[in-house]
Amino acid sequence: MSQLPTEFLNEAKTLLGDKGWSEDADRLKDAATPWRGNWPGETPFLAMPGSTEQAAQLVRLCAKHKVALVPQGGNTGLVDGGTPHGEITVSMRRMKAIRAVDTKNNSLTIEAGAPLVDAQEAADEANRLFPLSLGSEGQATIGGLISTNAGGVAVLRYGMMRDLILGLEVVLPSGEVWDGLSGLRKNNTGYDLKHLFAGAEGTLGLITAATLKLFPKVAKATGWVICKSASDVVDLLTLVRDHAGDTVTSFEIIPARAISMVQADAPDTRDPAPSELPWRVLVEVSMAREELARDTLMEALGDGIEKGLADNVIIAENKAQADSFWHIRETIPLSKRAFGTAINHDISVPVSAIPAFLDVTEAEIHKVAAEAEIVAFGHVGDGNLHYSACEPKHATSPILSNHAGEITRIVHEQTMRHGGSISAEHGVGRLKRDELAGIRPQVATDTMRAIKTALDPLGIMNPGRVVSV
Amino acid sequence: MSQLPTEFLNEAKTLLGDKGWSEDADRLKDAATPWRGNWPGETPFLAMPGSTEQAAQLVRLCAKHKVALVPQGGNTGLVDGGTPHGEITVSMRRMKAIRAVDTKNNSLTIEAGAPLVDAQEAADEANRLFPLSLGSEGQATIGGLISTNAGGVAVLRYGMMRDLILGLEVVLPSGEVWDGLSGLRKNNTGYDLKHLFAGAEGTLGLITAATLKLFPKVAKATGWVICKSASDVVDLLTLVRDHAGDTVTSFEIIPARAISMVQADAPDTRDPAPSELPWRVLVEVSMAREELARDTLMEALGDGIEKGLADNVIIAENKAQADSFWHIRETIPLSKRAFGTAINHDISVPVSAIPAFLDVTEAEIHKVAAEAEIVAFGHVGDGNLHYSACEPKHATSPILSNHAGEITRIVHEQTMRHGGSISAEHGVGRLKRDELAGIRPQVATDTMRAIKTALDPLGIMNPGRVVSV
Repeated sequence: MSQLPTEFLNEAKTLLGDKGWSEDADRLKDAATPWRGNWPGETPFLAMPGSTEQAAQLVRLCAKHKVALVPQGGNTGLVDGGTPHGEITVSMRRMKAIRAVDTKNNSLTIEAGAPLVDAQEAADEANRLFPLSLGSEGQATIGGLISTNAGGVAVLRYGMMRDLILGLEVVLPSGEVWDGLSGLRKNNTGYDLKHLFAGAEGTLGLITAATLKLFPKVAKATGWVICKSASDVVDLLTLVRDHAGDTVTSFEIIPARAISMVQADAPDTRDPAPSELPWRVLVEVSMAREELARDTLMEALGDGIEKGLADNVIIAENKAQADSFWHIRETIPLSKRAFGTAINHDISVPVSAIPAFLDVTEAEIHKVAAEAEIVAFGHVGDGNLHYSACEPKHATSPILSNHAGEITRIVHEQTMRHGGSISAEHGVGRLKRDELAGIRPQVATDTMRAIKTALDPLGIMNPGRVVSV
Repeated sequence: MSQLPTEFLNEAKTLLGDKGWSEDADRLKDAATPWRGNWPGETPFLAMPGSTEQAAQLVRLCAKHKVALVPQGGNTGLVDGGTPHGEITVSMRRMKAIRAVDTKNNSLTIEAGAPLVDAQEAADEANRLFPLSLGSEGQATIGGLISTNAGGVAVLRYGMMRDLILGLEVVLPSGEVWDGLSGLRKNNTGYDLKHLFAGAEGTLGLITAATLKLFPKVAKATGWVICKSASDVVDLLTLVRDHAGDTVTSFEIIPARAISMVQADAPDTRDPAPSELPWRVLVEVSMAREELARDTLMEALGDGIEKGLADNVIIAENKAQADSFWHIRETIPLSKRAFGTAINHDISVPVSAIPAFLDVTEAEIHKVAAEAEIVAFGHVGDGNLHYSACEPKHATSPILSNHAGEITRIVHEQTMRHGGSISAEHGVGRLKRDELAGIRPQVATDTMRAIKTALDPLGIMNPGRVVSV
């Protein structure tokens, strides 16, 4: 970690004020330690701007002194994108104001450092819905969610985070502020800059605020379904959509062995319908009225049983029961970690390719590690699976760690063979940068580099993430 | 119009083959004449590549000889974006194949030169919906619709064209092909290039094919509503969404005087419910089953009458009646032209600002042209109005032409004051390039220029559109 110029430090401290910076060893360590604890980094200086103007002046200082910075939100990212490795850290968590709510326009303007839950609650108070929802919603911030184009459990109906923004306010690498906040749903006035900053993981600018889309509130009906094959799961999705149109909000696949893991780890969970069959689906239909959603879901799943696509179906009687279904789903990632070593992947393939992908990939992995337990769960409606190879229970000696590289190679190779993506929703960061440079078409990487160089010629904005230059 | 290098012409003709080029004066004139006939241009050479590889080789030739090109689809654009002014024309209309339909993945891969109606029909045959719909759907091509990020009448529910693409195939200004076709709904592997090319009006690359999102088919219920004020119209939108959630697909506002114009011009139209009140709403709710959509719409509009937001309501009894409502709506642009001189604008404001915008703008225009007839119609659910000041009927001498510049200044000034956009769905082209450079924040224009220069350093791709460099 190179020494920061004294002049930079003095100017930054004066600019940010007492509340706005820290050199305390514990706080620096905290800022450099991501949520999961892997890839711990280091940072010489923690800046916490309290306003867009302060953030802009700070970036101007960074540009002047060629000091690299890492924008940081909730530090819950999974690809080593927001953890500093020698750069200064710019934590946005002091900027969390809700600037405006417009119920007639169905929009909400909120600062980048606010956690997702704040946006959800502000929408709820205005009798509206902000639909993005994911496990880390208490910590993950609006700015981070936009920068990583977060997904979650309602993408099938509402899209990814980029689809939920109307406008952005961004500090550019020069320190200039682009005020692109806007409540407009239609605005064809040049290149769509907000879509460039969304998903850029802080490499093109520092997002300071956003105008988000709000939606009418909906009532939900939630179902738990037992299926005998992944192919039936995919066909059931089509069938449910035939009945319910695009009111299907979530369609999550859960393997039976994930439920065993959750039950072993979290005693407060209960398997809603124990069965020897290998797959569960957690399905949610959202409509203006609850009985309508319920009737539609019952009819759709009844048809699923009749057509042999579903073996058993439970419709949640009330919110508590629906929550208990979701609790199982949301607990999988943690229980999987408690269970032991797991080689994890975040992949997507076309929905139609899921059954073949699952079959072939499991067979290939078992060739190199016959006892590996495969746990593939997630957003089947989006073609997005969190695919893990787990250490078998009661393994006397570690099996997987010797094969981690090979297993990942197999998963990613099969993903690409099935027309998929090796980073569906988690992003690139430093973790997947080089692997993606090898997988992505060269012209795409070249184009990304050209954009990065054009917008951040000094290379101070989250350098080394997404693309190397 | 400068002379094309002979070597370029010879190589281009050999490459494209007999069917792939023309120097016929009539065909060149046709290619240089947009749909509405305004801003006629000129072009020395019409290229019609028959494949992505041909298109790529052609662009490579253009780069080699520094020959500028204008990508052209249906030539139905409204902002002088796709009409050549001395450049060669690259018409994509020979490339119109449907490459793939995947019903389980709900996706369709189609070439850029296919008209929108081909995508709609292919989706329909697969028992799916491709929801983009607009007046010129028989001519406008997929490539043009993506390049201009087209809107239309179902944006409220399904978004703009950019929201409906999963992947793109693009010939870059270097002549390299970016194969970004993908059926993936989730793919966070770097900057989102498809969103950069979408809406770039052909200035960053030549789109050759796209993978589009398909949706479950829906059944519609269509209503015609009489309202006494624009404020009631906006409140009625909120009320209908309270009842119907986001199954409200269209919510179009039509002023009474537009109906008089349509009736004078198109004798096959009938006012569904003559009334002295100034506003009509054409509202559509889409659900999985028709009776459900109908019941929901009736209930919502009944509540509208009870709350005093609607004066009278007609629910279409059948598709023919619904089509007759839409026919009125779709005929407005042409009838307005037949009626006489009109100064037209394509603006958007936050939905909540529509009533105030309409009041103030009309009052300001009447200060300079007291007799101007204001016709504002369009997609109120998206905050997007097509706002025209029309020559009064039976005017003995032209009133508006003397005030055109001033009227546009007023409309655009009020749009900006109400937080709006002076190009909601039509785009920038050459027509609004310089005005937008004055209105847009300077940093946004600078950023767009930096992107254009980085991706098209020779300046051969539709030069002079969107931004000057």
